[in-house]
Amino acid sequence: MAMMPVTDSLYLLAESREHPMHVGGLQLFEPPDGAGPDYVSELHRRLVKADDVRPLFRRRPMNPVSSIGQFAWSNDNDLDLEYHVRLSALPRPGRVRELLELTSRLHGTLLDRHRPLWEFTLIEGLQDGRFATYSKVHHSLLDGVSALRLLQSSLSEDPDEQDMRPIWSSQLRDNVAGRRIQPDEEGGALVGLRNAALAIRDIAGLAPTALKVLDDAFREQSAGLAFKVPKSMFNAAITGARRFAAQGWPLDRIKNVRKAVSGATLNDVMLAMCSGALRRYLIELAALPDKPLVAAVPMSLRTDSARTAAEGGNAIGIILCNLATDTEDPVARFTEIRESMRRGKQVYHGLSQLQITALSAIPMAPLAMSMIPGALRVTPPAFNVMISNVPGPHNQLYFDGARMTGIYPLSIPYEGQALNITVTSYAGNLQFGLTGCRRSVPHLQRLLTHLEDSLAELEKALIA
Amino acid sequence: MAMMPVTDSLYLLAESREHPMHVGGLQLFEPPDGAGPDYVSELHRRLVKADDVRPLFRRRPMNPVSSIGQFAWSNDNDLDLEYHVRLSALPRPGRVRELLELTSRLHGTLLDRHRPLWEFTLIEGLQDGRFATYSKVHHSLLDGVSALRLLQSSLSEDPDEQDMRPIWSSQLRDNVAGRRIQPDEEGGALVGLRNAALAIRDIAGLAPTALKVLDDAFREQSAGLAFKVPKSMFNAAITGARRFAAQGWPLDRIKNVRKAVSGATLNDVMLAMCSGALRRYLIELAALPDKPLVAAVPMSLRTDSARTAAEGGNAIGIILCNLATDTEDPVARFTEIRESMRRGKQVYHGLSQLQITALSAIPMAPLAMSMIPGALRVTPPAFNVMISNVPGPHNQLYFDGARMTGIYPLSIPYEGQALNITVTSYAGNLQFGLTGCRRSVPHLQRLLTHLEDSLAELEKALIA
Repeated sequence: MAMMPVTDSLYLLAESREHPMHVGGLQLFEPPDGAGPDYVSELHRRLVKADDVRPLFRRRPMNPVSSIGQFAWSNDNDLDLEYHVRLSALPRPGRVRELLELTSRLHGTLLDRHRPLWEFTLIEGLQDGRFATYSKVHHSLLDGVSALRLLQSSLSEDPDEQDMRPIWSSQLRDNVAGRRIQPDEEGGALVGLRNAALAIRDIAGLAPTALKVLDDAFREQSAGLAFKVPKSMFNAAITGARRFAAQGWPLDRIKNVRKAVSGATLNDVMLAMCSGALRRYLIELAALPDKPLVAAVPMSLRTDSARTAAEGGNAIGIILCNLATDTEDPVARFTEIRESMRRGKQVYHGLSQLQITALSAIPMAPLAMSMIPGALRVTPPAFNVMISNVPGPHNQLYFDGARMTGIYPLSIPYEGQALNITVTSYAGNLQFGLTGCRRSVPHLQRLLTHLEDSLAELEKALIA
Repeated sequence: MAMMPVTDSLYLLAESREHPMHVGGLQLFEPPDGAGPDYVSELHRRLVKADDVRPLFRRRPMNPVSSIGQFAWSNDNDLDLEYHVRLSALPRPGRVRELLELTSRLHGTLLDRHRPLWEFTLIEGLQDGRFATYSKVHHSLLDGVSALRLLQSSLSEDPDEQDMRPIWSSQLRDNVAGRRIQPDEEGGALVGLRNAALAIRDIAGLAPTALKVLDDAFREQSAGLAFKVPKSMFNAAITGARRFAAQGWPLDRIKNVRKAVSGATLNDVMLAMCSGALRRYLIELAALPDKPLVAAVPMSLRTDSARTAAEGGNAIGIILCNLATDTEDPVARFTEIRESMRRGKQVYHGLSQLQITALSAIPMAPLAMSMIPGALRVTPPAFNVMISNVPGPHNQLYFDGARMTGIYPLSIPYEGQALNITVTSYAGNLQFGLTGCRRSVPHLQRLLTHLEDSLAELEKALIA
């Protein structure tokens, strides 16, 4: 029996019908040349036979229905792989729209706690001949970054590599580097709310003087932002059903916009696209707040302290970004976002890794608190929407010769945070995954059109 | 606000991830002549527009997360019909096997309590050109018999009738009789556990003398059975995932077997098929108890009391049937089942409707108790498996010219009752629907082969 860290069990404790606590990924593939109509079902048959399941994918909560006390893991020695590895199909006409509808439904149902907390679905029936995979794993097992890294390990840069192992296999190699994945690498990376939960633990152990430093730093960030977080339609109680929308944009288009504004980053352009899209979406629904929306943006930050450099030198900080959604002019909006991100990073300058983590926890604390059943949310939202940029693979990847054409993250809407935007890069594209509460975020797919319009508007204004 | 009867709210109170409390129905249809490849998606588009939703299908629990006190209904005035009415497809090769896998998955997920408690899924992609519908409704809204009756009302005996209304429409007529369904007919019929829950309420109000009569009658039934209920693999704690298997057999084959044994009913043949199939299944798994399995069989019983005749004259009684699974010879087994059913009905002879209901509640009480969260199950199983025969339509039915070729009920496995068998008749066939807990009842589909073998064995032994 392995006791579960408090930060992991929090995701089991906080889970309810209204608040599924799993992350997901949608991948699109082109079948290899010469693949017949039964290619996907044959692949499914082969994958179901890959029963050398690594320990992480055998874990299940020891007492599935416990709601108090600490959780422990047990191993499922009688794993029912046909339950976890599924084959599904799209109804006609098999457009991306039908794929997103199915993915939304799959992402909105709870994982079965009597079994290891993951599902993997092969999806056929796309009209353009591609197929998709949707994978779903509980946040208590893996966060989004780790899941993406593990997925990458199950793919190859070599289109001719055959007999590859699926993501749950204990024989999985890091195909890109050609090495075996070590067990202690699983669940290693931390980001977002998991970070916050960890940070709350860390803050509890901080000396009062350290807290004073953080308090000053947070005041600086707040003062620098010089605005208050408005209430918005995204900051409502949520229900269990989900809407998911996804699309990719060429990185070259985003790079061209970046070049036109000095000091801007690709991340700033991504945030400006989101800002413009959210502004258009909220105007359509007559729900745009007078004050600008504030995004929580997890960022990887280099720290200057020698001590933290020895520890690895990187830390995730949460930056509160003024999305300037009250500003109509796209260039002025973009400039304001770039400025807000620059100021946010400055606040962290010179802080230690622990201090960065602790400072990041301050805006996340109300959200982490809202996960605890029965805890009252006494504070207004510390931000309106979480926007994460998770680094993805640079090169074209393949599974058994099938080329992956896209990869889109599905994240967790939380109580009071009905919309999550997560983007990842892959092979020359920036891929957006938008996950929302079906009730609180109607017509989520319109945000895709608005993202395109928002990027086109920046191109028109900035590129001759 | 409408308060919910205690018997209805019991199904909401008892529901958990492990114990979804909805019933379902799987229907198969042949598209009309000349239907194109987009027939099903066009039908879906039309159905999603049928937003004249009757009150029953607008109801949702007022406080979805309450777990104590009485529930109340509220109306969803902002019904999201695209959420409730879904379009899905089978992966290749689109056999009945793929259909049953999808149906099992759909039946194993919880309904969203923030919305009216029903879903309706159109399923395309069967290799033989047919399409299917799977409907799912919470037991607190409708029991299986009422759901089947309502479904029948949404179909027509006329293959040329067009522009028909779906089951949730407020304009639904009883197409068979050509009349409008009255609101007070909804949720009228009672059977099985719902009956038990009602009966427990009724018993509480009975005079002690009446209880004495019942106690004597129950002793008689038990004595007549002259056996104890064994523990079996079906009487275990269950999990939330489901397996569903379904198949139809021509009524003519069953009638021929009945004719060969004097005094036997069609129901007796059905029970003998189940008995032989369960015996084969349990032998394969080396899990056949030495003592015979006992089935709980809900039966419609005519009562002799004038008072109950004035009230409608029919009551549902639960008969405990000795399935004689310890007997190898199929004819001896069949005879024993027929005898056990005859004795069971005799016990009820001369009892009033209320007495029948109360007597039926005695074996069901431990099951009803097990539904109450936290209630200890202090008694051994009162029976091993519930086998219900729900009367279905006699004639061929159509929806907008699409002929219904089969209809199969999906019921609720309960704690300690991991397998449910429900059969219904339709247009010359007897249709079996087997719903089991995925973990406790492995390889459920093998029972279909065993049902056929069991029928063939009776035919071989009894028909020259």
